[in-house]
Amino acid sequence: MNLAGLEAGGTKFVCAVGDEHGELSAQVRIPTTEPAETLGQVIAFFRDASRDTRLAALGIGCFGPIDLDPASTTFGHITLSPKHGWNQADVVGPLVRALGLPVELDTDVNGAALGEYRWGAARGFDSFVYLTVGTGIGGGALVGGRPLHGLLHPEMGHLLIERREDDDFPGTCPFHGTCFEGLAAGPAIEQRWGRKAETLPEEHPAWELEAHYLALGLVNLVCTLSPRRVILGGGVMSQTHLFPRVRERVRTLLNGYLRTPAILVDNEEFIVPPGLGHRAGVLGAIALAERAALARGA
Amino acid sequence: MNLAGLEAGGTKFVCAVGDEHGELSAQVRIPTTEPAETLGQVIAFFRDASRDTRLAALGIGCFGPIDLDPASTTFGHITLSPKHGWNQADVVGPLVRALGLPVELDTDVNGAALGEYRWGAARGFDSFVYLTVGTGIGGGALVGGRPLHGLLHPEMGHLLIERREDDDFPGTCPFHGTCFEGLAAGPAIEQRWGRKAETLPEEHPAWELEAHYLALGLVNLVCTLSPRRVILGGGVMSQTHLFPRVRERVRTLLNGYLRTPAILVDNEEFIVPPGLGHRAGVLGAIALAERAALARGA
Repeated sequence: MNLAGLEAGGTKFVCAVGDEHGELSAQVRIPTTEPAETLGQVIAFFRDASRDTRLAALGIGCFGPIDLDPASTTFGHITLSPKHGWNQADVVGPLVRALGLPVELDTDVNGAALGEYRWGAARGFDSFVYLTVGTGIGGGALVGGRPLHGLLHPEMGHLLIERREDDDFPGTCPFHGTCFEGLAAGPAIEQRWGRKAETLPEEHPAWELEAHYLALGLVNLVCTLSPRRVILGGGVMSQTHLFPRVRERVRTLLNGYLRTPAILVDNEEFIVPPGLGHRAGVLGAIALAERAALARGA
Repeated sequence: MNLAGLEAGGTKFVCAVGDEHGELSAQVRIPTTEPAETLGQVIAFFRDASRDTRLAALGIGCFGPIDLDPASTTFGHITLSPKHGWNQADVVGPLVRALGLPVELDTDVNGAALGEYRWGAARGFDSFVYLTVGTGIGGGALVGGRPLHGLLHPEMGHLLIERREDDDFPGTCPFHGTCFEGLAAGPAIEQRWGRKAETLPEEHPAWELEAHYLALGLVNLVCTLSPRRVILGGGVMSQTHLFPRVRERVRTLLNGYLRTPAILVDNEEFIVPPGLGHRAGVLGAIALAERAALARGA
């Protein structure tokens, strides 16, 4: 089965052709410029790919906020974006009209979560959270094997957590200042300490504070969703020394509540890095395409 | 179809017989004393009820934390309770052995949520949150029409929210001090202001602070679950003046994010009281029984 996947991000669109085993046969990166230009290049890539092979479906994992309600007249449109040309832009419509493929759309992070469920660190875990910590914080989740949405889609980066007493950083979020993303995404680290996060040594107090904020966010996600596993990805988490710190801090903050060894004792298996690394996004889009194809009885 | 429902609470067990229309034909309240005594009275009630009529299944909405994993050797046991005799107590086993009925077990709050979905304020809303604010704070949710659980079950009362600057109350939670429940449940109001919550007049500053904390918790639940509706029940919410205050505070805290009229403009329909009032718990148990019966092809 040949599946088309599109990881639509704020800086680049990654197009790929893959199969139900998570093997990729072709891939291209397109810079995110204006919608017409970027989507035109996406269409050209998949038209070209479909000359050699029949594509069964298209999966799209898209940056948000995006309208995921199939009953809405603005299904597949970005709802709010500071990015030039993308506010209210229709991402899905032009692709459906040009390619004529069954489409499954979800957020980039729900897509990546699905990729991890299918071929990565969440195999066998039907309820889990996938959190990416980079230029922003985004979260996706599966509940009972299905990507989580409702009225809209999760916005886990905007959890309201408590700024620690010894931190006077005002936060970077234009809406909420010191929300989860405003305190703990990469730009917050950089602005708080006045240097790029990746240049801060392991023993710098930045990381202890970062682990605290990540743990605060995770405790809230765990108390709400009761996931079987939490996957932490994104550029900030390439600082792998954060993992043991976050695990320890989650234990400390829970303080003996949620009395299961998986969380309170051996949480090395509870809080883990992605199994697919940087390919979670594009493989997630392939996994979305697989769902679209299976729903059509392919 | 005759269905047996048990709302198992920390102070009382409510047993009822009802049907698939949410009509109750018999009901009894049993004080929660020791497990053997209380469960013995439950068994006696349902044995008596089954003399007149065939009971198709038993639904149990139980206080927690409780083990909901059907594969666990301690399925249906309370995992942690300060209540004499109930720590590690097996709630479900004795009932199954004595009554021989198919059983569906969930938390009291997931049960109540299911009751609201079936016959109350959540009819037609397949993804929503049910929060009860009383002597504690408990939360249940349906996601895609199914009660939410994962590794354990949600513990929404233990969300970690920020204590407001003008509040120096240390919180009531023995585990986390100033978590959501520690700051905003009935006992926190009473201890903070030195008098019973229900004696505080509407214009007392207690209520503005309470609305703030409830809104903080709700924003975190909304950012994680993206519910289509939020139902607020429990004794504290019998102060109905809290509803407009909480709705306004949620809008203020979100500050223009989650740009949907349902949340940002007309959130009278987004944050609502229970449709079943105090009967949500017992009708939820009947709704759980209905699921057990339908799963058995009744």
